Amino acid sequence: MKQSLLFVPTLKEAPKDAEVKSHKLMVRAGLIKQTAAGIYTYLPLATRVMKNIEAIIREELDARGCSEMLMPALQSRDLWEESGRWSKYGQELMRLKDRKDRDFCLGPTHEEVVTHAVRDYLNSYKKLPLALYQIQTKFRDEMRPRFGLMRGREFIMKDLYTFSESQEDLVYWYQSMKEAYTDIFKRCGLATKIVSSDTGQIGGDEADEFMVMSEVGEDTITYCTVCDYAANQEFSQLNSGDKCPVCEGLIETAKGIEVGNIFKLGTKYSESMNAYFTNRDGKKQPVIMGCYGLGISRTLMATVEQNSSEDGIVWPKELTPFDLHLIPINIKDETLSEKIDSLYKTLSLKYRVLIDDRDERAGVKFKDADLIGIPTRLILGKSLLEGSVELIDRYQNTKKMIFIDDLEDVLKSLL
Amino acid sequence: MKQSLLFVPTLKEAPKDAEVKSHKLMVRAGLIKQTAAGIYTYLPLATRVMKNIEAIIREELDARGCSEMLMPALQSRDLWEESGRWSKYGQELMRLKDRKDRDFCLGPTHEEVVTHAVRDYLNSYKKLPLALYQIQTKFRDEMRPRFGLMRGREFIMKDLYTFSESQEDLVYWYQSMKEAYTDIFKRCGLATKIVSSDTGQIGGDEADEFMVMSEVGEDTITYCTVCDYAANQEFSQLNSGDKCPVCEGLIETAKGIEVGNIFKLGTKYSESMNAYFTNRDGKKQPVIMGCYGLGISRTLMATVEQNSSEDGIVWPKELTPFDLHLIPINIKDETLSEKIDSLYKTLSLKYRVLIDDRDERAGVKFKDADLIGIPTRLILGKSLLEGSVELIDRYQNTKKMIFIDDLEDVLKSLL
Repeated sequence: MKQSLLFVPTLKEAPKDAEVKSHKLMVRAGLIKQTAAGIYTYLPLATRVMKNIEAIIREELDARGCSEMLMPALQSRDLWEESGRWSKYGQELMRLKDRKDRDFCLGPTHEEVVTHAVRDYLNSYKKLPLALYQIQTKFRDEMRPRFGLMRGREFIMKDLYTFSESQEDLVYWYQSMKEAYTDIFKRCGLATKIVSSDTGQIGGDEADEFMVMSEVGEDTITYCTVCDYAANQEFSQLNSGDKCPVCEGLIETAKGIEVGNIFKLGTKYSESMNAYFTNRDGKKQPVIMGCYGLGISRTLMATVEQNSSEDGIVWPKELTPFDLHLIPINIKDETLSEKIDSLYKTLSLKYRVLIDDRDERAGVKFKDADLIGIPTRLILGKSLLEGSVELIDRYQNTKKMIFIDDLEDVLKSLL
Repeated sequence: MKQSLLFVPTLKEAPKDAEVKSHKLMVRAGLIKQTAAGIYTYLPLATRVMKNIEAIIREELDARGCSEMLMPALQSRDLWEESGRWSKYGQELMRLKDRKDRDFCLGPTHEEVVTHAVRDYLNSYKKLPLALYQIQTKFRDEMRPRFGLMRGREFIMKDLYTFSESQEDLVYWYQSMKEAYTDIFKRCGLATKIVSSDTGQIGGDEADEFMVMSEVGEDTITYCTVCDYAANQEFSQLNSGDKCPVCEGLIETAKGIEVGNIFKLGTKYSESMNAYFTNRDGKKQPVIMGCYGLGISRTLMATVEQNSSEDGIVWPKELTPFDLHLIPINIKDETLSEKIDSLYKTLSLKYRVLIDDRDERAGVKFKDADLIGIPTRLILGKSLLEGSVELIDRYQNTKKMIFIDDLEDVLKSLL
């Protein structure tokens, strides 16, 4: 792909309202563009990274027996009256009327819609279990949108719903999804902690959050320095500096960015919305549900926060928008230009390659390359005429000259 | 994938309000589920087909130098005031207020947002051309939603916008996108006609529509029986039954489903929204734009309309949700069950395989398989113990017994 056609509007200065590093970088690297408070356009580089995150999610969920579907953003008041949430959900719910004056909302979650979608079908234990997910745009009218994609009003989530005949089966799916999430975040280059939390506006019996430790996180969590124990401060029984009752480790506090949350819903929605099935004893029983959210745009932002310096991003291997960034410099003669073109074409057969074909000075190209953060770069200059190029590896922070004849082997070991 | 985990709620009867074949079939085959008038959930089979359509679109557009991005559904009134469309667009525009009483709409198209996104950046001819697209959910408050996905209120579109320095460059992109669309629809198994049309609420200088000929289409088009001439009846200068002035063919009329539309916007949005660049002569000039829509959910529906009988769908090769449908029947002993399981696992390594693992009678499985329309099926029954299976090929409408030893070669030639 030619950089001139990709649309990467890099900026020297971050916008004044950008308070955190990832927000500043995402705007400066031409990843996002704000169109209104808390509402963003994902520019081509960010879109490519999000597609990578989505592909990882699909792989991990499909491998565990989940099926993808797509539910609408527009949800009728009727459904929300059934669950009782129309009157309970506050001003964060964006509400509107259609031309016939009927009430709708823009879905912040989809418990009502998914329960409506399955309830006629799930009439017998034979049709259970079921695990359905979607990757879709959600809406929440935040009082104070801030931190870029961290607290936005329109954002992209993966939400998944499980339907079980028994508490044991719910526990099986809950555990399976915990493992899926752990694997997903690991592949995204994110270290997360699993934190017990309350169930909030979603409701249900038990909930856990996946937290990325970060000084810009909005939640305060307490965790043990030795074992896996971690909890939301409000939720936690323990005070910072205490000994942990389970393992003798010390309890510390830190800030966290919530990137995922999972809930044992139980029968809250199936009872209120009449989703009953005939169980193995021939009796009617409400379906036992779980719900599992994962913020995709937030994961993107947390990844930038964890994998960057003030000068730019270094994309984790599975998320990088391109495998290889070619940066031609000081091209003064036709021969060099032809050699570059031919190398670009050859490499593009094997890798996702971005070439900086812009008519810009080397310094500008280097600074932009640092900003946008493709971890493996080849500088193509005069040395190419003698058969070598400079390879920059941002994971190792190394620069070295490589003979073109060795390039294939070197790239094979890196990419 | 196991059918029991996929969620395919097939129905014997179509809903009463379903008037056209594709709508009936899509509900009966468990592809879509209505949640409100003109608002649908795409169930897992439909989602898989849509992902295939989207993959084709991405391939064809990326190959022609276009870049994918993602713009928000929520659009502020401010932007629509700039273009002048806030007051001009009628009741089909869904409008809402946020918690601070500011006006927003749910985007039916994205000319305003994309022009806002690029206008600061596109300040010189050096940064042109640019072709940006998204695959995204759109909203239009239809007076009378009908025909399932054909005239819905929330639907999925690919919309693309080109930015050029000259009329010649616009013509180049317009032609390139015409070819891309032709290729996309062909790969989707759809025969389309290109029809000149008026520019409607989008505005601009010239427009063409891509039409699928169908008796359930909502547009009347006139076309020549010999040459490529085709036009919207309202737009056409000719009457049905006339000789065509260009080629001596006869003019006929037919109904068409609009699946794509392309517009030479010219400078309508760049002038009103102040998207100017410095041209090669050093003068300020408004960017010349084109816009190119393609209805993905509508393409899905048109595909079902064209590739089906009353009994079910036959998915075109590139759209089929699975390559292969395995249908085990009359499994009474362990040995057969193990052989089936092993065949399923072997085939799944190479192909996207769906296995009907439900505890249902053979007749029910066959009827459901006809409905959901995976074109290549293997019936796995007693004969498997003697080393053969029945192969059903719905493209050729043939059934034949195949030795397991020949299966690999037979499938290689078919899939």
